[in-house]
Amino acid sequence: MSIGLATARSVVDEALAVGRQHGFKPLTVVVLDAGGHVVAAAREDGASNNRFEIAHGKAYGALALGMGSRALMERAEQQAYFISAAAAALGGRLIPVPGGVIVRGDDGAVEGAVGISGDTSDNDETAAAKAIQAVGLTAQVA
Amino acid sequence: MSIGLATARSVVDEALAVGRQHGFKPLTVVVLDAGGHVVAAAREDGASNNRFEIAHGKAYGALALGMGSRALMERAEQQAYFISAAAAALGGRLIPVPGGVIVRGDDGAVEGAVGISGDTSDNDETAAAKAIQAVGLTAQVA
Amino acid sequence: MSIGLATARSVVDEALAVGRQHGFKPLTVVVLDAGGHVVAAAREDGASNNRFEIAHGKAYGALALGMGSRALMERAEQQAYFISAAAAALGGRLIPVPGGVIVRGDDGAVEGAVGISGDTSDNDETAAAKAIQAVGLTAQVA
Amino acid sequence: MSIGLATARSVVDEALAVGRQHGFKPLTVVVLDAGGHVVAAAREDGASNNRFEIAHGKAYGALALGMGSRALMERAEQQAYFISAAAAALGGRLIPVPGGVIVRGDDGAVEGAVGISGDTSDNDETAAAKAIQAVGLTAQVA
Repeated sequence: MSIGLATARSVVDEALAVGRQHGFKPLTVVVLDAGGHVVAAAREDGASNNRFEIAHGKAYGALALGMGSRALMERAEQQAYFISAAAAALGGRLIPVPGGVIVRGDDGAVEGAVGISGDTSDNDETAAAKAIQAVGLTAQVA
Repeated sequence: MSIGLATARSVVDEALAVGRQHGFKPLTVVVLDAGGHVVAAAREDGASNNRFEIAHGKAYGALALGMGSRALMERAEQQAYFISAAAAALGGRLIPVPGGVIVRGDDGAVEGAVGISGDTSDNDETAAAKAIQAVGLTAQVA
Repeated sequence: MSIGLATARSVVDEALAVGRQHGFKPLTVVVLDAGGHVVAAAREDGASNNRFEIAHGKAYGALALGMGSRALMERAEQQAYFISAAAAALGGRLIPVPGGVIVRGDDGAVEGAVGISGDTSDNDETAAAKAIQAVGLTAQVA
Repeated sequence: MSIGLATARSVVDEALAVGRQHGFKPLTVVVLDAGGHVVAAAREDGASNNRFEIAHGKAYGALALGMGSRALMERAEQQAYFISAAAAALGGRLIPVPGGVIVRGDDGAVEGAVGISGDTSDNDETAAAKAIQAVGLTAQVA
């Protein structure tokens, strides 16, 4: 089952709450369904102009290749040319640093992905993973 | 002053409420700041895959040329080649049918835009305009 | 001889002066050299976000096909598919309405082009042509 | 408050004056508003064809990610694949070397950005920072 709007908005709220709780810089959160299409997004005041595109690319790229964007980073460190070519093939919709987390349901099926950008990549990922868990779903970071 | 996240989320909520009240088909709502960058978005369950891109293009195109997307449609009916060329110049981020509404503040300054897609273009525009007015801002549909 | 910066800035100043004198809406003026590369640009306060791209496309398209953008419009009215395909071939850098004017020197050689957007296409063209003439050069509108 | 044309043109003049005073190679200066849209540009005689695009990408990328382009370079030196992917996500509008400087007002708010290309990246940045300070605004280089 793909993520619906109610769940997506809860994930956004939870992620922003994590950010505020930890004192992260302003976050931008994007939630995609299993097909990689936008369900919900929010960009906090003070976030720079194009954080949506970065957060989106983390989530879209994760679903595109079936691994959290942390695994995309690991691949980029080994074979930068592959990730560069994949990003080009996807029209730029792949950002290979942590913060793009795949969402799985009880049965292990992919339900969507969450992308966050704004603080360090590690903190972006933390906010995404905690938010996914807070709504009772499973986070796949790599 | 550009639209912030709190206002943008209120606009999204109001627009979805209008849609439910009138029995519109599932709506996708995108709110952009004055620079044309995503602040908030929501796509209701049952909306087709790429409604975000359509709603986004209505709002982005409105801000790009400084007129509601209803005026873009009127121009397209007179000079389709101009609107087609403008869309290409903007990387496809211009959708010339009603539903892209510029948001102005008390002083008349542009604060952002709202794009909605899902029902008829006229109904999409109605939801956008009502939502903007509900949060105390001014809607420019053409 | 291609347009240099001093001449380009004079053209911008003259065009903005024409706009103010006639009460035109805020204008955006782009001056390209003979190779189609930006030499100078100015976007007046109150002009919408992407007027640079529109003004640029008028001037770039004019140089691309060797005719003022009024002639591109006439061609679009006869063969919209040709202009649409040409715009695509040029990465969207062709806007086929008046306001893109080729600049020629005493010897008739192409020295560059001026693109203006903001008021009606006819008024945009008037501002461009008058500005070119004011600096002692020849304007080719079609 | 976003940068208006009068301020943008003063920044261009100051930057070109710095260039001449220090004997820099011909400079291209682009000033963007807070939304990343062109307000003013000038390319000095002798500058190569596409210096506008380079200067633009320094300024646009700085606003996109909320850091001067010197910080983009530092990130590129650590994670080239991230900056490469971000550039692709932004349609190529990100050039990660010094010379893209964010402009802030008295209250610290982002008012726009200046991008300069033509001499060494360090000198490009110097011209941008000095020009921003000369008009009474604050320059953020990283």
